[in-house]
Amino acid sequence: MTEALEFGVRALAGIGEIAPGDDLVEAIVAAARGTLRDGDILVVTSKVVSKSEGRVVRAIDRERAITQETARIVATRVHEHGVTRIVENHHGMVAAAAGVDASNTEPGTVLLLPVDPDASARRIADGVRRATGRRIGVVLSDTHGRPWREGQTDVAIGAAGVRVIDDLRGTTDAAGAPLAVTMPCPADELAAAGDLVKGKASGCPVAVVSGLGRLVGDLDLPGAAAIVRPAERDLFRMGTDEAIAHGMAAGRTAGYSAGRSIGFSEGFAAALTSSGRDRQRT
Amino acid sequence: MTEALEFGVRALAGIGEIAPGDDLVEAIVAAARGTLRDGDILVVTSKVVSKSEGRVVRAIDRERAITQETARIVATRVHEHGVTRIVENHHGMVAAAAGVDASNTEPGTVLLLPVDPDASARRIADGVRRATGRRIGVVLSDTHGRPWREGQTDVAIGAAGVRVIDDLRGTTDAAGAPLAVTMPCPADELAAAGDLVKGKASGCPVAVVSGLGRLVGDLDLPGAAAIVRPAERDLFRMGTDEAIAHGMAAGRTAGYSAGRSIGFSEGFAAALTSSGRDRQRT
Repeated sequence: MTEALEFGVRALAGIGEIAPGDDLVEAIVAAARGTLRDGDILVVTSKVVSKSEGRVVRAIDRERAITQETARIVATRVHEHGVTRIVENHHGMVAAAAGVDASNTEPGTVLLLPVDPDASARRIADGVRRATGRRIGVVLSDTHGRPWREGQTDVAIGAAGVRVIDDLRGTTDAAGAPLAVTMPCPADELAAAGDLVKGKASGCPVAVVSGLGRLVGDLDLPGAAAIVRPAERDLFRMGTDEAIAHGMAAGRTAGYSAGRSIGFSEGFAAALTSSGRDRQRT
Repeated sequence: MTEALEFGVRALAGIGEIAPGDDLVEAIVAAARGTLRDGDILVVTSKVVSKSEGRVVRAIDRERAITQETARIVATRVHEHGVTRIVENHHGMVAAAAGVDASNTEPGTVLLLPVDPDASARRIADGVRRATGRRIGVVLSDTHGRPWREGQTDVAIGAAGVRVIDDLRGTTDAAGAPLAVTMPCPADELAAAGDLVKGKASGCPVAVVSGLGRLVGDLDLPGAAAIVRPAERDLFRMGTDEAIAHGMAAGRTAGYSAGRSIGFSEGFAAALTSSGRDRQRT
């Protein structure tokens, strides 16, 4: 695979406010003024997609909206303003407040994430490809906090026509050694790069990344759903406080042998069992 | 604050292999051939910093090295090849295998992270500034997995002369509403952008980001240590399996009132206590 030696990222100026029902493809194509090229990748702030899709609810309905968007509560953060729920939404994605967003919205309203971000990305990519004749890719970005690190970065919550994960397993490094577990996630890195130029307050919801055409492909490539790790394989599927509380409740009645049924991962339960066996033998 | 409307990222070709004792500043300045400009940011793969600093150990000593680099085990992942430890290192940073790396290394060896990545970044930034007269910034990047999402992205483990976190709290969005909790982490986004051009296997350990001079400042700006969230404030300071096991052990002897002493966060313990009170009242 040839690596690009350079790429550029620019904010697409002139998109303006997006209202429910607005045609985002039209707005992007008009703002691009014929400058899109084959291999360009549009990094689109999911917020404007939510707006165009009418995913707007009244701010007083925010908590109920978060509940509706929630498939599972992962953790809760207690702070001076109340409680923030970090949840898994119906697409399996983990985000604070289920991605419900109150910044850069009409006063008195909040925005929900697009119903199906990958489908939204495909619609935009398909529309822009048809209108311009250019083989472009689309990443829908959203701003996420993360464990262990302060601050937020943008990540990909939707994608179309972009290789979201570069599976390098089976390839070799510069010294010929196998890159055993290396699976970069260019979709998230594209979202991050786009954020550096879009900013949060500048009213520029779309960035164009040029020069990384190696990451652009057909519209039937897997979307950002492929980035979501299923909870049962996740070491951090539950917040620490919640997991301790869960364990304490179980500890009053169950033994380690009940590991899996009380929420241990398969590997962990097996390791506990085998180390228990080792102990018995010595 | 004015936002850049575009920026470029290019791989710095011609750095070649770095061996213990090699002068990385000299290698970077030679490869740049006078092309660095004020406001450029060098994204340097931490691996070459480790090599130049001689942070090399024999592969057979890998597990012991990880133990030495570990301040606290956060979680363990059991898989077909053994057990991966996700740990907090002596700088508070959480990473798989304490960042000990076996790809792109001399056969039979593995690399430890630089002893003090922020100090390494400052040495490089200071050296390149002196040699070129250009006000450049430096980000040391490393490849990290993350909870909830498949694949890896590059993040900043060291930084100098770069604003690592853009604290927008107190500023307003395009509609005039306060950006209450918005704290983008451009250092991590720069590391991610750099990875898109450096790749994993291309032997290009340095990327130059041009056009984001607004993020470049004095060498005494906080380094990447400022991105590290202290464990006691982290909702995911312990893996789910470990936290459940910890709770189960405690559940056999202690009550919820002992919450803090068994590892609950302060906010969570307080919430449990107050909801307990509410229950008593009803």
